[in-house]
Amino acid sequence: MGHVLDDDKPCHECGVVGVYLAEAAVGEPAEAARTAFYGLFALQHRGQESAGIAAVDENGEALVHKAMGLVSEVFSPAVIEGLPGRIAVGHVRYSTTGGSRLLNAQPLVFSYLRGMVALAHNGNLVNYLELRDRLATLGSVFQTSTDTEVIGNLLARYSQDRLEDALIKTMIDVKGGYALVLAARDTLVGVRDPLGIRPLCLGKLEGGYVLASESCALDTIGAEFLRDVAPGEIVVIDSRGVTSLCALQSRQRAHCVFEYIYFARPDSTLDGINVNRARRAMGAQLARETRLQADIVVPVPDSGTSAALGYAAESGIPFEEGLMKNRYVGRTFIQPTQKMRDLGVRLKLNPVAEVVAGRRIILVDDSIVRGTTSRQIVSMLRTAGAREVHLVVASPPTCHSCYYGIDTHLPELIAARLDVEGIRAFIGADSLHYLSVEGMFSALDRGGEGFCVACFDGRYPVPVEGVREGGCG
Amino acid sequence: MGHVLDDDKPCHECGVVGVYLAEAAVGEPAEAARTAFYGLFALQHRGQESAGIAAVDENGEALVHKAMGLVSEVFSPAVIEGLPGRIAVGHVRYSTTGGSRLLNAQPLVFSYLRGMVALAHNGNLVNYLELRDRLATLGSVFQTSTDTEVIGNLLARYSQDRLEDALIKTMIDVKGGYALVLAARDTLVGVRDPLGIRPLCLGKLEGGYVLASESCALDTIGAEFLRDVAPGEIVVIDSRGVTSLCALQSRQRAHCVFEYIYFARPDSTLDGINVNRARRAMGAQLARETRLQADIVVPVPDSGTSAALGYAAESGIPFEEGLMKNRYVGRTFIQPTQKMRDLGVRLKLNPVAEVVAGRRIILVDDSIVRGTTSRQIVSMLRTAGAREVHLVVASPPTCHSCYYGIDTHLPELIAARLDVEGIRAFIGADSLHYLSVEGMFSALDRGGEGFCVACFDGRYPVPVEGVREGGCG
Amino acid sequence: MGHVLDDDKPCHECGVVGVYLAEAAVGEPAEAARTAFYGLFALQHRGQESAGIAAVDENGEALVHKAMGLVSEVFSPAVIEGLPGRIAVGHVRYSTTGGSRLLNAQPLVFSYLRGMVALAHNGNLVNYLELRDRLATLGSVFQTSTDTEVIGNLLARYSQDRLEDALIKTMIDVKGGYALVLAARDTLVGVRDPLGIRPLCLGKLEGGYVLASESCALDTIGAEFLRDVAPGEIVVIDSRGVTSLCALQSRQRAHCVFEYIYFARPDSTLDGINVNRARRAMGAQLARETRLQADIVVPVPDSGTSAALGYAAESGIPFEEGLMKNRYVGRTFIQPTQKMRDLGVRLKLNPVAEVVAGRRIILVDDSIVRGTTSRQIVSMLRTAGAREVHLVVASPPTCHSCYYGIDTHLPELIAARLDVEGIRAFIGADSLHYLSVEGMFSALDRGGEGFCVACFDGRYPVPVEGVREGGCG
Amino acid sequence: MGHVLDDDKPCHECGVVGVYLAEAAVGEPAEAARTAFYGLFALQHRGQESAGIAAVDENGEALVHKAMGLVSEVFSPAVIEGLPGRIAVGHVRYSTTGGSRLLNAQPLVFSYLRGMVALAHNGNLVNYLELRDRLATLGSVFQTSTDTEVIGNLLARYSQDRLEDALIKTMIDVKGGYALVLAARDTLVGVRDPLGIRPLCLGKLEGGYVLASESCALDTIGAEFLRDVAPGEIVVIDSRGVTSLCALQSRQRAHCVFEYIYFARPDSTLDGINVNRARRAMGAQLARETRLQADIVVPVPDSGTSAALGYAAESGIPFEEGLMKNRYVGRTFIQPTQKMRDLGVRLKLNPVAEVVAGRRIILVDDSIVRGTTSRQIVSMLRTAGAREVHLVVASPPTCHSCYYGIDTHLPELIAARLDVEGIRAFIGADSLHYLSVEGMFSALDRGGEGFCVACFDGRYPVPVEGVREGGCG
Repeated sequence: MGHVLDDDKPCHECGVVGVYLAEAAVGEPAEAARTAFYGLFALQHRGQESAGIAAVDENGEALVHKAMGLVSEVFSPAVIEGLPGRIAVGHVRYSTTGGSRLLNAQPLVFSYLRGMVALAHNGNLVNYLELRDRLATLGSVFQTSTDTEVIGNLLARYSQDRLEDALIKTMIDVKGGYALVLAARDTLVGVRDPLGIRPLCLGKLEGGYVLASESCALDTIGAEFLRDVAPGEIVVIDSRGVTSLCALQSRQRAHCVFEYIYFARPDSTLDGINVNRARRAMGAQLARETRLQADIVVPVPDSGTSAALGYAAESGIPFEEGLMKNRYVGRTFIQPTQKMRDLGVRLKLNPVAEVVAGRRIILVDDSIVRGTTSRQIVSMLRTAGAREVHLVVASPPTCHSCYYGIDTHLPELIAARLDVEGIRAFIGADSLHYLSVEGMFSALDRGGEGFCVACFDGRYPVPVEGVREGGCG
Repeated sequence: MGHVLDDDKPCHECGVVGVYLAEAAVGEPAEAARTAFYGLFALQHRGQESAGIAAVDENGEALVHKAMGLVSEVFSPAVIEGLPGRIAVGHVRYSTTGGSRLLNAQPLVFSYLRGMVALAHNGNLVNYLELRDRLATLGSVFQTSTDTEVIGNLLARYSQDRLEDALIKTMIDVKGGYALVLAARDTLVGVRDPLGIRPLCLGKLEGGYVLASESCALDTIGAEFLRDVAPGEIVVIDSRGVTSLCALQSRQRAHCVFEYIYFARPDSTLDGINVNRARRAMGAQLARETRLQADIVVPVPDSGTSAALGYAAESGIPFEEGLMKNRYVGRTFIQPTQKMRDLGVRLKLNPVAEVVAGRRIILVDDSIVRGTTSRQIVSMLRTAGAREVHLVVASPPTCHSCYYGIDTHLPELIAARLDVEGIRAFIGADSLHYLSVEGMFSALDRGGEGFCVACFDGRYPVPVEGVREGGCG
Repeated sequence: MGHVLDDDKPCHECGVVGVYLAEAAVGEPAEAARTAFYGLFALQHRGQESAGIAAVDENGEALVHKAMGLVSEVFSPAVIEGLPGRIAVGHVRYSTTGGSRLLNAQPLVFSYLRGMVALAHNGNLVNYLELRDRLATLGSVFQTSTDTEVIGNLLARYSQDRLEDALIKTMIDVKGGYALVLAARDTLVGVRDPLGIRPLCLGKLEGGYVLASESCALDTIGAEFLRDVAPGEIVVIDSRGVTSLCALQSRQRAHCVFEYIYFARPDSTLDGINVNRARRAMGAQLARETRLQADIVVPVPDSGTSAALGYAAESGIPFEEGLMKNRYVGRTFIQPTQKMRDLGVRLKLNPVAEVVAGRRIILVDDSIVRGTTSRQIVSMLRTAGAREVHLVVASPPTCHSCYYGIDTHLPELIAARLDVEGIRAFIGADSLHYLSVEGMFSALDRGGEGFCVACFDGRYPVPVEGVREGGCG
Repeated sequence: MGHVLDDDKPCHECGVVGVYLAEAAVGEPAEAARTAFYGLFALQHRGQESAGIAAVDENGEALVHKAMGLVSEVFSPAVIEGLPGRIAVGHVRYSTTGGSRLLNAQPLVFSYLRGMVALAHNGNLVNYLELRDRLATLGSVFQTSTDTEVIGNLLARYSQDRLEDALIKTMIDVKGGYALVLAARDTLVGVRDPLGIRPLCLGKLEGGYVLASESCALDTIGAEFLRDVAPGEIVVIDSRGVTSLCALQSRQRAHCVFEYIYFARPDSTLDGINVNRARRAMGAQLARETRLQADIVVPVPDSGTSAALGYAAESGIPFEEGLMKNRYVGRTFIQPTQKMRDLGVRLKLNPVAEVVAGRRIILVDDSIVRGTTSRQIVSMLRTAGAREVHLVVASPPTCHSCYYGIDTHLPELIAARLDVEGIRAFIGADSLHYLSVEGMFSALDRGGEGFCVACFDGRYPVPVEGVREGGCG
């Protein structure tokens, strides 16, 4: 299955949600699963490959349903009704290839000494292989190739401890960026990595609580945002309410900056920063840094729209929808014929000739990975009559792999191989401008502290074996 | 299956495409069907219920594949390869309910005295029942409840005539708005109703021709736009090229104005008017007509975005994305629980509190049908902290049923029951403003001539039995 | 999809069922459809390609559900519940190939001047093409390539007449073998061809009536067998009860003898002859005609079992199950590799070495079409150690095509090309013996009158244009 | 999904197959999987709920495909081609209920310290819970509720040992009846429990070897039967050929007698006894034990047919097919209405009135579990006119639960609650006769040694905690 859409964007991400309902608040047997369903709906942009929900009933029995496809395709009313229980966790995934993909779908449900547990996870462990080898030596078996199964096996190793202690010990073992939700009999748990790389927030429902990757999921299900889960925190929700274990405290923060640039939904607020506002500010900062002369500002929809609006407002150059997106482009098996090969991007984007013809265009995108789509867009705009096309990118050059949960791999990063002029020449734009790292920080209003920007500067906040730090190509 | 999305928009429409390839231009057996597939992809916004393609091979055999679902769901490479032939027609449909919906999917393939024919149709015949009764009296049987089958049976009644003559006689019989594509052995035909109510255009492919409901389909498959099919014209494409029969000439034009307001894709140009430009102009005109004081202009995405940009540019009030749309909301079977009932619209739209809190908002939408979604949006914005919400609508009040192919029914039109103040009160906005009919015409740059605006003024260009003309409630 | 099973048997057949319930007898809205479902279940052996049921509700609306697959695959409780009405007809089909097979599934539902009608048909019209051409000249269109659609169009031509008269006129037009059930508002109709080639019987339900291809369907749904529909009879069932129109009376009878030999279920009684008894009698007659010396009688299961039991009882030679059938062999896409090619039949049949080794075997089958399966079975038996294999066939050599609804085509009939010795040599049996035509008649206990045996003697009771009568090759 | 068929038979069983091909013998990449597919086809009678095949490629990577449904439904050519490798194991399953059934489908593929392994298992471990608890205490997690996962975890515990040694240690740990096939890089392994309760045999393929639950699978794929795997034996197949480890030698044998009575296919030979011959012998023995006066012997098809033939041959009373079975009855969702409730069995079996009317019948079945189906059959026969119905059962009364892999549970066993006269009265037969245990042994020609007959006499060869031995109710 080829995704026509977004083939030039980083694509490895996941979204998680957890729901806890007090007994008195349960209106129907599967209300927790149903609420998780709506939460996943709002997180669909974080993963379109598979979706799953697990619920734990009053006997501690966990049932799970997971399948390849969108949330709306995977779940039917009958399926939701088959997931009774006050506590549920859900997961959307955008990831791996290969024949055994369903095996890797989440949540993972397993039983161990202390009963049944359902686990859903967003992120990546940098010491996954080391941990797996260590567990295998102790006699563990692995049925998937997920971090989640490693985390589950670690928990089981500590099954003589209370769940909370086992979780703390597990957090000591694992390295990387992660946001974890776990459902067990009578308990919902949320865990966030010590640097807060991956996002996770806590909300209040009538008669219950919600954990979710992004605040937009809370809005969708009518939950009140309480706070972000703190880096290194374990949040335990049970009949006594919310208990916080600050397991691995650290002053350091390393929130993934790509969440603000591309991944998160604009209506989400992560760690105190609204995504829409951040994107507009990055666009405005870009306008201040570039000071280009042009007739119109045109976004690459949808990911470049917020930044383009910021750019237009700051520069005073009119914002115009010069590229129209086919809202229904999604997964398709059908490949274009040779004759139509160069029309690939056309299935997704079409220039509006009446808007672009004869104009000098500032084309705004959020980021560039391979550069191939940008090249096609610039070419389309010229064919439609654009006089000049200046590509401005609302983030710095992406020139380092991510090891904490985002699928940007060095070999495919154009900015790792070429300098800005080389990229411009490849893309065919009249000029190319990236946002500076300092400009990005000032737009985020934090003075550069507290973010993971390893994909831009190669300084990895969690050491990755065998990877040296370094600048861009 | 409930569409969460767009339940407050008119929803009955269809899109058609026809492809003719010269023998020398055929690169692979199913190239015509494959090209039609890409065309349908670009027309998906005109119908999401079912999709179909029929191809006619060199022996005059027509094969068809049609099914419920999106174009990308209905077709696989194997299915496309099973549709060989130089000539193909395709159809997307958004329509009827009930158990036998697949029966009504198009194209309709049938054989009659002169061989096999595939027919795809967008529009509505106002004398459907009369024609069906007349045909039944002559001994016809009907396996569907589509206009298309009536058209096919009329053609068969005239089977002693040449196809062109049979088509002219059929056009004399049928009344209403329609755009028709027909594939027969060696011939592709396009037909447009005498007033040009429904759109149809002609494009040039390398080694062939294309007919499509909108020009965006031509762009997507790399075809050059030649011209709109003229009202009342029959376009016959065969080995001699394009032949035009101006069957039912008329000076009058009645292009459906709702295509510009809501249906067509912004990058399409229909009958000389670019849709995006028309929408921006309607937004700008609305700004001139209303002169509201406010802090920000916020669109109801996506249908209100172009008009909101026009409004903002004209008024000088900043454009802000105050409502975020879930790009993945689509069909879902899962209904919200009682507790979440009022959150219905939240699955699709979420206000950005950072943008709207404390602000006076001009909320721009393209049109209002029932008013229920508008009411929920206004309520959400207020809950998110908006100080004032002024709803401006980039079209006049919709207060009459459409009988020419758009599914607006009197009983559900709020503007047919309430005056503007009544609608405002229902919706809960601080003020409500519709675009004037004159303002709409001036935005369309045609001085009011040549459009069907029956849904606004009740003056039906093709008489509908039993319907009197009249103004709004 | 390849049928591993029965690839050496005639395979073109269909089964029909019709249900009429009096208003007072209806326990649930879809009871007629549900009853038809059980009836089709019992007729599944007559067609495994597609299945369908149509029901007519009190408003005369007919709804249909039909799909490729077995009855149990095509229908779910929800589907049945979606087919309300007191009157229903059902159909199972085993037939055509190609991409448009679902189009040809039955029942066919159509509306014409007098309302909606559902039609299901078993058989074949010898003048199908002539009738279709005649109708096309009058302006009819055809969406399928079925006899049923031609019959529907003929009825519509006579729509000025009462339904009964239209049916009589239609029967005058059509030639061939057919059994028809038709559901209209308030009426269920059964029609049988003038010679009674295809079977149809009438049963009494509590509060209603049933029509079915075979009496076993009556047993399954708990209906009492009343009688066979007479050749040329039209049976009309409505609120007045059962009315019989002897439309095309004829003294001649030509019941298809292959129903007794192979098609019908052994527990059915058709036109007064129980199928199981007929098969045993044919086996016994075969024993009298052959008088072979052997150790055991072994059937080719399941079609040869009844005849083999008759043979064994008559000859006194012990009956043994020397070939075991895989009860789960059905449709499979997987083809054997080259290495396993010669094992094709093994997927379906496996010799029991302990039974056959060292024995002289009388192998009993019901008929031979191509001879390829027989050849493989004989070879398998020899490999398993059989000392002699004498193949005895409980019917005469099949050497003529059937034009009345059974898919035996001259080019594939081994008996049309080779004499008995030639066939024996091809199959590799030690001897080969067919039942004589006279023996067959005596087993059927009717002295040779009243059967269609055209596939054996080439004397076609309904003339087929272009076909001369003749003997075997 | 309700199985209409065989709801009165024990239904918990599985079938396994393993294929090893030498490198030189591989004709296509997925030949091992394809061969396993044909083997499973022949074992379909051992389980119809789910099917799966796993193959190990030259890199030691194991891929698996498993799904609910029949072998022919679960596998397509594309699926088979996606399972490359010289070594494959397959599994068919008939078992558990509940939402997570797919999770429990086999083979189970996992990786542990020594690489990837695929495991398929038929049988039941009596100490499953004890082993699982012991492993959980050591930190194991369980994702399914299968014996197979426990076996896999035990192997992993011994991962410091060679695979062979780990298998021997695992066999020391597990108690019960089992037949296991295991595929690892370069090696296929077969294991049989120390008493030989569950069957497993070894065959020779051109260029390879096969392991299978029954010999009929060897016949189907053209393999030569070499021998049964010995009780307690581990068979290791690799590039050095077949190595036998007689891990847990025992003189005792306890072959499951129900394999001969009901489960195995008649053409299989298990541990030296042909199933068909055993059934006929049991029927003949029953005739000697009962000496009834009657007109005809009628089997309950298909499971009673072999015994009935044996009975008829021994008694001289004619064998007649008085009950016809619907060959297409399978899984159906549709339940009969109240009115048709008593017709339940009719969907599957129909009496042939011409055969049974006025006759004294000896009705032969293989075994009785609940007695409800027998009761309905006797009633149907009487309604069809039978004068007397004497039910003879070709096995002793089943009055004890099986703990070794067959799903007979005490609460549902009629013979555990009632004596023979009580059962006769419930069933409504004129007389009821079971085969004696001694008669069964004499028919099996072994003098009572070497069989597990715990379901008849309650003497469990492998002790089951909490179960006392005892006689019938």
